[in-house]
Amino acid sequence: MQLLDGKKILAEIKEELLQKVQTYVQKGSRPPCLAAVLVGNDGASQTYVASKEKNSEQCGFVSRILRFDESTTEAQILLEIEKLNNDPSLDGFIVQSPLPSHISAQKVFDAIDPSKDVDGFNTLNTGKLAKGMNSFVPATPLGIVELLKRYKIETSGKHCVVIGRSDIVGRPMSILLSLPNATGNATVTLCHSKTQNLKNFTLQADIIIAALGKAEFLTADMVKEGAIVVDVGITRIEDKTKKLGFRLAGDVKFDEVAPKCSFITPVPGGVGLMTIASLLQNTMKAYEQRFSTLNS
Amino acid sequence: MQLLDGKKILAEIKEELLQKVQTYVQKGSRPPCLAAVLVGNDGASQTYVASKEKNSEQCGFVSRILRFDESTTEAQILLEIEKLNNDPSLDGFIVQSPLPSHISAQKVFDAIDPSKDVDGFNTLNTGKLAKGMNSFVPATPLGIVELLKRYKIETSGKHCVVIGRSDIVGRPMSILLSLPNATGNATVTLCHSKTQNLKNFTLQADIIIAALGKAEFLTADMVKEGAIVVDVGITRIEDKTKKLGFRLAGDVKFDEVAPKCSFITPVPGGVGLMTIASLLQNTMKAYEQRFSTLNS
Repeated sequence: MQLLDGKKILAEIKEELLQKVQTYVQKGSRPPCLAAVLVGNDGASQTYVASKEKNSEQCGFVSRILRFDESTTEAQILLEIEKLNNDPSLDGFIVQSPLPSHISAQKVFDAIDPSKDVDGFNTLNTGKLAKGMNSFVPATPLGIVELLKRYKIETSGKHCVVIGRSDIVGRPMSILLSLPNATGNATVTLCHSKTQNLKNFTLQADIIIAALGKAEFLTADMVKEGAIVVDVGITRIEDKTKKLGFRLAGDVKFDEVAPKCSFITPVPGGVGLMTIASLLQNTMKAYEQRFSTLNS
Repeated sequence: MQLLDGKKILAEIKEELLQKVQTYVQKGSRPPCLAAVLVGNDGASQTYVASKEKNSEQCGFVSRILRFDESTTEAQILLEIEKLNNDPSLDGFIVQSPLPSHISAQKVFDAIDPSKDVDGFNTLNTGKLAKGMNSFVPATPLGIVELLKRYKIETSGKHCVVIGRSDIVGRPMSILLSLPNATGNATVTLCHSKTQNLKNFTLQADIIIAALGKAEFLTADMVKEGAIVVDVGITRIEDKTKKLGFRLAGDVKFDEVAPKCSFITPVPGGVGLMTIASLLQNTMKAYEQRFSTLNS
């Protein structure tokens, strides 16, 4: 069993991006710039955005955080997005979820200029993904594909079972893996809450992507010998023996599943870090596309 | 074994649409209007467009065909599309494929106003479909879902195997059947040219959608007893015993597969006619959305 080490790959990718940024800057270009829009005071969101900022800066990117009060109206946010769309000093931006309930997340995502939509949540980018066109792909599924690629795990002809059909992970994951290209070409089964006899599917899978959001759901009896298991879940579980009073668990019962696997992602240190890596790569892509458009 | 009779369901749908049109017209509205853009002289395209026109008129729709010479430039076609987008007397229009090779089909489809895109080929509509938002869905997969619905075939929890991942059939079909709604909720496996041991998948399927475009590919040994088989293929096969010198074959070897099935579509008389039915339904939807927007 080998760990798919998100921490190591994130470090590699950041180093590659930093090199690129230095080359561009030496040639006289400004560095890439990523902004995050943060509405309200959700604790987890603050942490995520701070982490994205730190990682961006470590790649030599310029990072901006735009903070708005919980009571900001949808119209005000849409106006801010319009400004960011038109700001030439900015290559990409994200709007951190969750948004307050009086703001439609999809309306906000669809207001983002698709060429700056580094989270890949704009519906036009979803359509491009489904058609295999050049697009911004949501960071979590993109990070998983990158992780598999870096460990030279072939997907072509493999049977991949994706558990969970969310717009930001399961659905785009199922599409990405079945696209006719070098990181796709898998036979993909998309499973979800209405799937009957899930175990029947997971037991046949060469690659399992567990993205249903239920702690330690995938057990050893559901996995065939030699499978590759990618764990997207991250849940806090109360644990009085820990200093913080909780531990983090994925969707996979790691201790019993890992021995059966050829490869498996740890939680934490797996997919979560690859999500950051992909956001950084998407920002570089937005930057490069922006300048190649300007120069063409 | 019961036939999924596209001819019967098309007739039912046309009757329903005609009733609706008559009601709208009696209330003083104009009838729905569908246009087809035809570039060049492809024989099959002429036939398809003529059939769409005839069926439209039988529903009480106004039908228009806009014919352009093979040598028409992409820019000219895009200009015509702009006119159609802005024409208030028109609810929906299609651009018949194939287009001459000097015209980018995707560029043309993406120029169509998404609210008039009754073929559902605009990338924004693809994205909306993938997110389960209200959209125009390509006519063939939509027609298949309608056919299953009219025969009260439950998809929830069923294992559906889709063979073929084209943008207009296989891919949207796999998405539609797995959406969290009343005509979806199936566990879907998307198979394609890189799938290994395809038979292993089809033998497990409750519902098989054969959309790979290879005549008589699916044989009896690939289908489990009681399966539901939907045949999207339509190929001309030379047959000197026929008056026209050919016969039409689907992707399914009908004679040997049919006895094992609970339901199966014939070719012709199955999916092809449902594709027309869906185009008509999409046109009515565009019409109703147009007037509800105007009146709101």
